[in-house]
Amino acid sequence: MNHSLPVRVYYEDTDLAGIVYYANYLKFIERARTEWVRGLGIDQTRLKAEDGIVFAVRRVEADYLKPGRFDDLLTVVTTLDGVTGARLVLKQDVQRGDEPLFRAVVTIVALSEGGAPARLPAELRRQLESQLSEK
Amino acid sequence: MNHSLPVRVYYEDTDLAGIVYYANYLKFIERARTEWVRGLGIDQTRLKAEDGIVFAVRRVEADYLKPGRFDDLLTVVTTLDGVTGARLVLKQDVQRGDEPLFRAVVTIVALSEGGAPARLPAELRRQLESQLSEK
Amino acid sequence: MNHSLPVRVYYEDTDLAGIVYYANYLKFIERARTEWVRGLGIDQTRLKAEDGIVFAVRRVEADYLKPGRFDDLLTVVTTLDGVTGARLVLKQDVQRGDEPLFRAVVTIVALSEGGAPARLPAELRRQLESQLSEK
Amino acid sequence: MNHSLPVRVYYEDTDLAGIVYYANYLKFIERARTEWVRGLGIDQTRLKAEDGIVFAVRRVEADYLKPGRFDDLLTVVTTLDGVTGARLVLKQDVQRGDEPLFRAVVTIVALSEGGAPARLPAELRRQLESQLSEK
Repeated sequence: MNHSLPVRVYYEDTDLAGIVYYANYLKFIERARTEWVRGLGIDQTRLKAEDGIVFAVRRVEADYLKPGRFDDLLTVVTTLDGVTGARLVLKQDVQRGDEPLFRAVVTIVALSEGGAPARLPAELRRQLESQLSEK
Repeated sequence: MNHSLPVRVYYEDTDLAGIVYYANYLKFIERARTEWVRGLGIDQTRLKAEDGIVFAVRRVEADYLKPGRFDDLLTVVTTLDGVTGARLVLKQDVQRGDEPLFRAVVTIVALSEGGAPARLPAELRRQLESQLSEK
Repeated sequence: MNHSLPVRVYYEDTDLAGIVYYANYLKFIERARTEWVRGLGIDQTRLKAEDGIVFAVRRVEADYLKPGRFDDLLTVVTTLDGVTGARLVLKQDVQRGDEPLFRAVVTIVALSEGGAPARLPAELRRQLESQLSEK
Repeated sequence: MNHSLPVRVYYEDTDLAGIVYYANYLKFIERARTEWVRGLGIDQTRLKAEDGIVFAVRRVEADYLKPGRFDDLLTVVTTLDGVTGARLVLKQDVQRGDEPLFRAVVTIVALSEGGAPARLPAELRRQLESQLSEK
């Protein structure tokens, strides 16, 4: 089960090399994670208010394959690759059509509001695991 | 009494036109306001905790005169131009040497944490007014 | 003739005050200008290649009325307010539903690639003026 | 031979979680690379003009250890970890005092202006290798 988000490249995303500035791919894939979570019916605001749980990025491995350019219409493809008690691993690719430009493996952890590692609420974990099994 | 902050232009600040992206001047002048406030001995964190006061930008008038470029060492010059009970007006110029690149008039308001307009604490107002009289 | 662009507020757009960082509204309205220009059938890449013309922001007057927040679905409404030989004036509002959050008057100039003021190509000017008369 | 760059955390760097937004560490370490290259006496503008060589990030492995916060004065510590004919590997840590917040391994490649992999000019390579041997 892949999730796709279209992303248009605007001036703000480019640098003087005429290509997408390298940090901005992390913005693109974070937008996609937000929409993916929303699409699963997970309400991050409620999760924080009721369970005191927030998500944080723990690790990113990112490969820059080809440069994106102004006005490109890119697609962020997000796939859940693993879930454990307190951790998700996502694969996130940024493509221009079928051409891969950027590829990341992102590890997300659940934190209590104090910042300590937290376990995912059981219902949320089941919801996420169903994404895995439907792959 | 002017306050000066040096700002180096990095890749992140430029766009494909090879110049500083227009929104980023607002980042530069916000850095300068933070340092100006710090230089006055005003602790924004304490102001929020003790007086429930935060500052917010209410209006910006910005003129883009010449483009900044990668690797430029710019200076943000900040001058307090007026203080009333709940409002500051600042002039903020971004220069490359003596050459003005960007010029803004920024109106700042004090807000209570709920977002309603708030009066500046008397001591803070005196502190700010002393900046005016020393001009 | 208004042009509307929906803009979702993501983490990248917010700051520690929990609201949209003030410089980011300039990004939102620049995205809207890019889409507005595209919608008019103007190809900025060709304009630069064939006529040596680029657009640059010369002045922004911006009022911050209410804060935007994470996950808000905003709308940027862009209206052409004036065209002269080398200059456009646009009104650009950012709204949450009918509620105005941000309001800007943006002056755009045409520049030759060397950076000198340039006249708009006649066809482009006619195209833009038709937007005015259809208001 | 480590290179250190101080970086102050401003509003622009934070998000609604009250911490440094994760993509912004890539900005911090890119600033440090620019200053490191400048410190070595390498002129990127000349390298591009004379040798047609530009540097591009090919891979980033990033660990987020602890959150940075508004007003923190951070240090980016950059160490050259390897040089081959067309590739540099850098270790870049972001610290608050001695406390590591962020740790990255960054692979940089040299590209010709057309985007093809290019060999580092011999003098540049020697210059870089001297950084290694002095470790």
